[in-house]
Order: sequence, then C-alpha cells, then structure tokens
Amino acid sequence: MPDNKLLDGIHSPEDLKILNSQQLVALCSELREEIVRTVSRNGGHLAPNLGVIELTVALHRVFRMPSDQIVWDVGHQSYAHKLLTGRREHFHTLRLDDGISGFPLPEESEYDSFIGGHAGNAISAALGLAAARENRHESGHVVAVVGDGSLINGLSMEALNNVRSSCKNLIIVVNDNKMSISKSVGAIPNYLNRIITGRSYNRFKAFAKMAVNRLPSGEGIIGGIQKLEGAAKSLFVPGVFFEELGLRYIGPVNGHKLSELIQTFERIRDFNRPVIVHVITEKGSGCEYAIEFPEKFHGISSFNPQTGQCRKKSSPVHFSSAFGDALCALAEKDPAVIGITAAMACGTGMKKFAEKFPERFYDVGIAEGHALTFAAGIAANGGHPVVAIYGTFFQRALDSLFHDICLQNLPVILCIDRAGVVEDGPTHHGIYDETFALEMPNLTILAPKNEHELKAMFEYACGWKAPVMIRYPRGSSCQESLPVLPVETGKSEVLRPGSDLVLWAAGHEAKTALEAALRLEKEHGLSCKVVNARFLKPFDEAALKADAGTLPVFTLEDNLAGGGLDSIADRLLVNEKHHGVHHFAWPSDRIIPHGTLPKLREKFGMNVDSIVAKIQTLLRETPYP
Amino acid sequence: MPDNKLLDGIHSPEDLKILNSQQLVALCSELREEIVRTVSRNGGHLAPNLGVIELTVALHRVFRMPSDQIVWDVGHQSYAHKLLTGRREHFHTLRLDDGISGFPLPEESEYDSFIGGHAGNAISAALGLAAARENRHESGHVVAVVGDGSLINGLSMEALNNVRSSCKNLIIVVNDNKMSISKSVGAIPNYLNRIITGRSYNRFKAFAKMAVNRLPSGEGIIGGIQKLEGAAKSLFVPGVFFEELGLRYIGPVNGHKLSELIQTFERIRDFNRPVIVHVITEKGSGCEYAIEFPEKFHGISSFNPQTGQCRKKSSPVHFSSAFGDALCALAEKDPAVIGITAAMACGTGMKKFAEKFPERFYDVGIAEGHALTFAAGIAANGGHPVVAIYGTFFQRALDSLFHDICLQNLPVILCIDRAGVVEDGPTHHGIYDETFALEMPNLTILAPKNEHELKAMFEYACGWKAPVMIRYPRGSSCQESLPVLPVETGKSEVLRPGSDLVLWAAGHEAKTALEAALRLEKEHGLSCKVVNARFLKPFDEAALKADAGTLPVFTLEDNLAGGGLDSIADRLLVNEKHHGVHHFAWPSDRIIPHGTLPKLREKFGMNVDSIVAKIQTLLRETPYP
Repeated sequence: MPDNKLLDGIHSPEDLKILNSQQLVALCSELREEIVRTVSRNGGHLAPNLGVIELTVALHRVFRMPSDQIVWDVGHQSYAHKLLTGRREHFHTLRLDDGISGFPLPEESEYDSFIGGHAGNAISAALGLAAARENRHESGHVVAVVGDGSLINGLSMEALNNVRSSCKNLIIVVNDNKMSISKSVGAIPNYLNRIITGRSYNRFKAFAKMAVNRLPSGEGIIGGIQKLEGAAKSLFVPGVFFEELGLRYIGPVNGHKLSELIQTFERIRDFNRPVIVHVITEKGSGCEYAIEFPEKFHGISSFNPQTGQCRKKSSPVHFSSAFGDALCALAEKDPAVIGITAAMACGTGMKKFAEKFPERFYDVGIAEGHALTFAAGIAANGGHPVVAIYGTFFQRALDSLFHDICLQNLPVILCIDRAGVVEDGPTHHGIYDETFALEMPNLTILAPKNEHELKAMFEYACGWKAPVMIRYPRGSSCQESLPVLPVETGKSEVLRPGSDLVLWAAGHEAKTALEAALRLEKEHGLSCKVVNARFLKPFDEAALKADAGTLPVFTLEDNLAGGGLDSIADRLLVNEKHHGVHHFAWPSDRIIPHGTLPKLREKFGMNVDSIVAKIQTLLRETPYP
Repeated sequence: MPDNKLLDGIHSPEDLKILNSQQLVALCSELREEIVRTVSRNGGHLAPNLGVIELTVALHRVFRMPSDQIVWDVGHQSYAHKLLTGRREHFHTLRLDDGISGFPLPEESEYDSFIGGHAGNAISAALGLAAARENRHESGHVVAVVGDGSLINGLSMEALNNVRSSCKNLIIVVNDNKMSISKSVGAIPNYLNRIITGRSYNRFKAFAKMAVNRLPSGEGIIGGIQKLEGAAKSLFVPGVFFEELGLRYIGPVNGHKLSELIQTFERIRDFNRPVIVHVITEKGSGCEYAIEFPEKFHGISSFNPQTGQCRKKSSPVHFSSAFGDALCALAEKDPAVIGITAAMACGTGMKKFAEKFPERFYDVGIAEGHALTFAAGIAANGGHPVVAIYGTFFQRALDSLFHDICLQNLPVILCIDRAGVVEDGPTHHGIYDETFALEMPNLTILAPKNEHELKAMFEYACGWKAPVMIRYPRGSSCQESLPVLPVETGKSEVLRPGSDLVLWAAGHEAKTALEAALRLEKEHGLSCKVVNARFLKPFDEAALKADAGTLPVFTLEDNLAGGGLDSIADRLLVNEKHHGVHHFAWPSDRIIPHGTLPKLREKFGMNVDSIVAKIQTLLRETPYP
C-alpha cells in the first residue's frame, strides 16, 4: 500500500492550512500518485488532472471553500479538488457505477459549486454566482478555472464580454497548457503563447531601440528610455488583450511552482476588481508517458501505471476508424472535400485525414457552432465539407444546423460520433440532439448497424446534394460480419424474418435486437422479425406500417425516449390498425448517470435480458387481436 | 412619384461604376428615400438600413459582386444591397406575401451569398466561403459586414479566433453604431468606443508626457518623444485587440463619408491578408425620427414617413407587457429576482423592469448561451433569475438549457416571447425549440391562452423550485376577456364542453380553437369540446386519455408538426382505444416563408376556415367507431 500519510489527513480544505510549504509539495506528489493509481485502474482523465495539481492545492490553500467557490470549466481536471474536499475515501470508485463522478457534480459535494462537462461554461456560471452574491451584498470569491482551449469557445467569450469591472471578487484562472483534447488552435491561444514567449514585448523593445537611435544623444537618455520601456511594458504588454476587456491581467505564472501560485493568489485576493491569472501548466505533469502523449492520456481506459501501456485490447475496427478510412478514400477522389472538427480529430478518427490532407483539414478548436457555420460557408461556395463531432457537443451547434445548413439546404456531411449513452455521465450522453435534428427541413438522418454500413452510408451521403447526418456510437459495433446492402433513400433493411413480432432497431442497436430475437426464439418460442431502420429521415413509413398491420411492433434505439424512432412510430401508427407499439429507449424523465454501459443498460431496461423479459410480458398481457 | 432617376438606372452593381462622386452621393439620397417610403408602407427594419447606405454603395462600387461576395450579419441591413442588385423593381413587395424577403436569401438572388437572420454567423460563413475558394485556388474577396452588437456573439468570436493569417481575401467590416436592437453592451463594444474616443491613445500620451518629465532635458527631445508616440500609436493603438488576433485593423472610418469609405476599400482590396475595417455609422442616419428613436425604428410596422407616427393602433395589452408587469410585481416582493435578456429588453417587455430595478437588470447583449448559463449561476447561488428571450434566438442556447439549467434542476424562469410563426420569415419562426425543451429533465413547460393567464403562470413559476419555461407569441392574445383559473401542476382547463369531438389547444391557439368550435357548431351542427392544455410538461395525460376514450381528438398548436402537443398525444394514445387523433401544426417538411400571418395561416391550413373544413372531412371520412 503506498504511503499517503499527508493526503489521508486531509478531510476538508481547512486541513491544508496547517501544512508547511514542504508538506504542501509532498502532498502534491501524493495527489499525483493517487490519481495515476486510480485512473490506471478505472480509466478517466489523466493528463488534464496531473497538470493542475499544484494549482488546485494553491487555490484551496489560499481561498476558503465552500464560502469561496471554484467553477471548473469542463471539470475533467477536478480530481485533485475532489481528493481535497472530503472525497478521498470514495475516490477509488471514480467513474464506477454509483461511484464518484469524473466531473464536478453539485449533488455530490457542496464544494462542487457548478456542473462541469461541456467546455466554456465556467466564466459565465462564475459571473452568475458572483452576481447573486453581489445582489445580496455578500462577500466571497468566485474562481473560474478555464483551459486555453475552452477560452476560445463562444460561451467563454460571451461571458468575457460581460465581465463588469464592478464584479469585485471574480478571478479567472486561465490554465494554459496549449491543449484542449488536441493542441489548442487559433488566434487567442497563439496570443497566449506570444505572451509567454514575450514576442509582443520584444516587438516593443525593438521599436523603442529604433526610436532611441533616432533621438539626439544626451546624457541619461538611455536610462530614461529604459524607464519608458518599463512603463510601456506594464501599460501594454503582456495581457493587453484582456486589459482592453476591463480585466486586470496577472501572469504568466508557473503552474507547477506552488510557492509562486500561492503568492499570486494571496496578492490578488483583495484586488477588488476582476482579475485574469494566466497560469502555465504542463498536461500530464509529473508522469513521463502522460507528458509525452498528452492526447492519448487526456482520457483513457485502464492502463499499467508503470509503463502507461493500455490494458484493454482495442477491437479491430471502430466506427471512428471506419469513418476515418471512408473520409480519406473520398478525399482521394474528390479534391473539394474539406474535413472539419472541433478539437476532436483523434476521437472522431479524423486524424488520418488531417495527416494525409493537412491543407484541407480544419480543427477549429472547441467551437462547435463555428464548425457547422464554417462548413455551411464552404458548401455554399461549392466545397464538400465533412464535419465530425461528438453527439453531446453537437448539441451546442443546433442553431447553426438549422440556420446555416438546413434552411439553405447545403450539402454538409455531419458525422455524429459518440451518439447514444456513454460512460462519462449526464453531461456527455449523445441522446438529446436527434429530436431537434429530426425537425430540420432538408436533412437526411442515417444510422449504420456496423462499420461497413457506416462506410456505405458515408458514400451515399457524398452523392447526396443536401445535408446528411450519420449517427453512430463510440467504439465497435461488435457485429462487423453482418453483410451490408446498398443504401437506398428511405429504405429499411430486414435483418431477420419472423412471424410473432417485429423489432425495429436504429443503427448499432441492431446488435441488441438480433440477440433479443435469438433469445425470444430459443427461450420462448417466439419468432421475431428484426428490421434495421437505416434511415431515421426520410423514414421507411410503408415498411413499418406494413409490419404493424400484422405484427406487434417494438422499437429499440440508443436514444432518449420520445426523441427518435419511437415518436416516428407513434405518429405513423396512432391512427392505423395495429397490434401494439412499444419502445425501448432511455427514459426521458430521469437523468442517466455515469457508469459502465452494461450496468446502465441493466438499470434502465436496455439490455437483452430486460428487453426479452419486457417483450414477453407485453405480448402476454396486452389484449391486442 | 418621387424622382429616382439614378436608382432607376441601377440594374446591377456594374451600373454603379460609371457614376461620378456627386452622383454617388445623390444615389445615397435616393436609396434613403426609397427605403423610408417602402418601410413606412410595409413595415420592416428602418434604422439599421439607413445607417449603412453609404457603406453599401461603397462596397458595391469598389468590389465586383457577385464574384466578390458580401455576407450581411443578421441581414436586416441589406435593403440598399437589394436595391442595388437587381431587386429595385420588386422592392415595393418587401416583406409582403411572396415578396422580397427582409433578409438576405440566396434563393432570391445570386448577390445574396449567404443567409441572414440570426446574429453572429457572418464571419464564420465568410471564412467558409473563403476557404472553399482557397481550396480551388480561386481569387475574389469575401466581405463580412458585422455590427458591433453581433461581434460579441459567441459565434462571431469563435470565428475571429479561427481567422488564419493565410486567409488572404477576407475583409471584416465592423459596422459600429453602438447598438444591437438596444444599446450594445459589454467590454468589446466599450473597447470599440474607446478607440473612437481615443482613450487608449490618450492614456499612452499621458504616460509618455510623464516619462518625458522625468527625462533629462536635451535638444530635440520633445520632437523625438513625439515620434516615439507616433510610432507607439501605430504599434499599439487603436485596434491592438484585433491586431493581437492576427487581423490588420483599419479605422475608425466615417461610415457616412462616401469618399473616405471608397478610398479605404480601394486601399485594402489588395492587402493580401485578413483585415478588419472599423466603420462608424449612425443608426437611422438621414432620418430625424429614426436617429432620435433608433430602438423604436429598428424594426417597425407601417408609419407616416413624414412624421414617423405609427399607423397601427397597438392593442391594449400584449403578452410582452403583461410579462413586464408580472416581473415588476414579483421584483417588488422578492429582492432575489434578477432580470436577464440578450439585447431584447424592449421587445420582451423587460424594459419596465430595467428602469425600475437597474441594479438587478442584465442585458448581456446578443449572447443567448451566456444569458442562460449566467442565469444558472445566479440560481445556483440562491438568486431568482428570469430570462426573457425570443423563441428563435432561444434555439441558440439549447445546450445551456440542458447542461447548466436542467441537469442541475435550477429554478430559472424562461419567458419565451415570439413563440410560434412570425412575419419575419424562415430564420425567425419560434417553432423549432419546443421539441428539444420537451426532452429536458426537470423542466416544466407552460403556454398561456391570454395575458392574464401568462401572469398567473408567471406567479406559479415563481413558486416552483425548478426550471420553468413559459411560451407565448408576439402581440396580443385578442382574448383578454377569457377568465383564468388558478394554475395547478399538470392540469389542463376545459374552455368549452362538447360531445362530438375535442380540440386540444396549446396556449394562444385557444382562440383559433374556440372560433373553430363555434363555426363547427353553427355551420355543421357539431358539438366541439375545447381544452386549453396549459401544461406541455408535465402533461395532463389523464384528461387527454379520458377525452380520447369517447371523442375524436384534434390538437392545435402554433408549433412545428411533430414537435409538441401532437407528438405528446400520439405517444399517449397509440396503444389506447380512441376515435381518431389528428393534428394542426406547421408542416415540418417545408420551410415556412415570410409573409403576413393571415396569409401564412391560410396557406398552411392553420386558419379557422381550413381547420373547420379539415375536421369536417376527417370526421366524415375516417371510419372510427
């Protein structure tokens, strides 16, 4: 058992206040070890958490939580915070079923003052927390910790524009590690980097020297000019960008020097005006393999803590890599193809394309709305944009989908990865966007049963001169061997005949459906037809109606109840003669927590066992002719 | 008939190229007159269009459209552009049924390179248009015209972060009139204003003088320092904010001096790097009453062009003003109430509150996402935030609704104004957001039949410790006299008994429903029950099911088909014995254009005539028991 004698003594942040500076440094080591140990076992976010250990300790040392408050942007860097705020004992349950969440969760602890998950909400939320206090004339600091990658998100920028100089106790910590999930991109991260490398300042210095050379010489002039330089530096560089927005800029500060951090926070605690503190951190700090591969160790499944070697053998083909292959194949043929992602090049499988066609690849950073509107602009001028994005983050671009893509009927291909419930919890399930998409004029929506079908659908989308969305889950379909028919507009596919009931499945749920059908046959002697819907829109209405005319209909989808296949079926069948219409989907009146997929499926009636049992019961109990 | 001899000769922008500078100035007068004349008759956006006349003429004079392209952000300032690009003859049909759209519409003209309507998309779209060209190695300029109010929208800022210095032919014109619909707010507009008033520069000057005083005196030193100042000015002010983002800043330019504008655009045309041109304009320029009341004349119905007097008598009570009264009444009692809007204080009726409680009022500018997340922050710290926003713009904040408000079950009151179809066209209908909202955990959704019911529902919402959304249309219910029952969670209200069919209406559609019921009785002898749903969520399932057990059910809502009451009814009744379930809603497979509400309702089967006729036919034809 490793030695965690300091950490074991921390039951609340108050316990930090009595440690001396050496002990605090030692505590950081213990936190680091504990996080590596737990993540190596349970999976989770490694590199982002290792990067903010000293920052977290410094914040809890200087401020008084929970009467002071921290808002963690995204929140995937809050593990040390959790370990210091009374969750040490349960930390081994991180991300496990009913365990500690991988993100800040107010219901978990009073120290989690606001939810985290989607990037960019921290400054906005912190402003709200501060405004409510101000309205009650209450004191107390609110600290928003925002990565440089999140800072460029529209929500962050809208909030920055709204920081009032009257907002006395707001502290924005920019955790600058030059990364979001991937490398941060764009003008603002570049600007932060220039501050660090001092280029703005150097530019001024060069100019001042030039000016001096043109001045008549005089005693003491150089000294005077140096003073001028010094004053100009404090007036103009670094941080003028933020100063122009009415924020006091402090930095850059070394994010791994605890003493420097503590001094800085102590100094600004009583500034009485909004401050931005620019902290430089290293993603993965203190752990060699995480520093070397920060993208791999951003979020990871279990691994060997000594070597960083992954434990899970990855399955041969994933939806993401099938997409990547299909995109590259298309790009070879069609020079108008342009690939766009919003800081998800690796996760979506677009990396391959990015490497092969760098001049046609755009990672716009955590800017989902821009990703879609930018794609619309490309399509409006005859390009063929392909956007790859996770389902949960796609939610942030729904207005761009509507306004810029669908109203103009522009041929943008949207590849929605991580559609469906995931293991990361409530903020990350990709189950809320489809219902909005189904309403969109001109949009075609497809869901593949396996990776080959994804490729076929992608090819279909490439030839379709209108917007197309393809939805698929994280990981592998585990049914790669199922053959794939040509994709025909609005046509479903019968996967299995049957005469007692029919199970319509959306996308990868074909797997669950086929398994359930086998079990129903073997165990209950029921002959279950299985249909792969393929198209959510335009939907194969005729086939469903025909099925419903003779068989009880069940639908199955990895989506929110009332949000997709189920409501399509209800609408089509409400006035038809049918033999019962029932649905399997994630309940909409409850929040789906984090946990492993098998457990979640079991808990919410979405695994094969529950489905077989429920179908059995319904067929027995419901008095349909 | 007024004399428009120059304008009448402009059939395409090419015709501008042969005019001399005096003629161009005269043309601006003609454009101004034509716009005032048409808007005074048809209604529309006045002040924004009058502000950009010279800018529009200058752009079309210098650039070669449509091979060069303009993207108008929002697009409510594109009237002069329309008049100069072949739409002069049809301009009198502006905003009328089947007439010229009040916004850029690519299907209307090849000169409208991208759609407008929602603020903030122009830079993003322009980047896309430019990227597609770059990929084909095509030349040509793309000009994005963005108001200072739009510039602070998250989408604009995400795009600004993504301007690559390699994007050679992108020109961003910031049309700075210090207004969005209301006065622009926040750090970035303040910054623009400081550029104009020269405060940054003055700050530098003051500092330099101080520095000089400390320098040893020497001949020529003052001259040298002046040079230093000059050079420093060009290095640092104005526009350093944009320069730091990699954009070349040019300005400020007087937006009403045609010669200055033309010279500026000619000069930057061949810059070969992205440029931001800061143009100062006056909203309503050239028209006294529009200058004096820019908010009133932002968007307006018909008026007397001589005096600016409105022609339409406004009806006594509007939903918006009922909301304003209810909010003020609540705020008197409850000091924790905080009002938030996103540049819609006037339109939503929040102005009254803003005047009475300025320290509790936040206009965050065109930043819908921030408005909601900020409200969530306030609620998380015990405040009582009320957000007022138009339905169509609410779409831009759906992720904040989900992530920051509903997942945390925070008591934010969302008052959704302009819900339903409006006269402004496809980009502005408030019919796409409800379906997403219906999916949200913890959210209550209400729709009032009239202004008194809105007040009752607002009071109900104030006592409810969870998020509540109240949806209502623009204008008046025209059924103010209907009595209002106390609001009871999840309970509907029978407005009229009946024994042949039941018509369930959402919110203000109670009016249409009651009229249809009267007509069905009088003209067809059918006894039609009418129910006001009141709650969309939680829905009065028992009442609907009971009705459906004995009567054919019809639903009626000012919302997209498949997006609300209709899908709720289908889901509830699909497996019930019923006598037919039919819906009246706006079709989801077509784009609802601009036009007058009576014409749109007629065209899409949503007026009383169509409803009565369709109910009649369905009851006759459908073989229900």
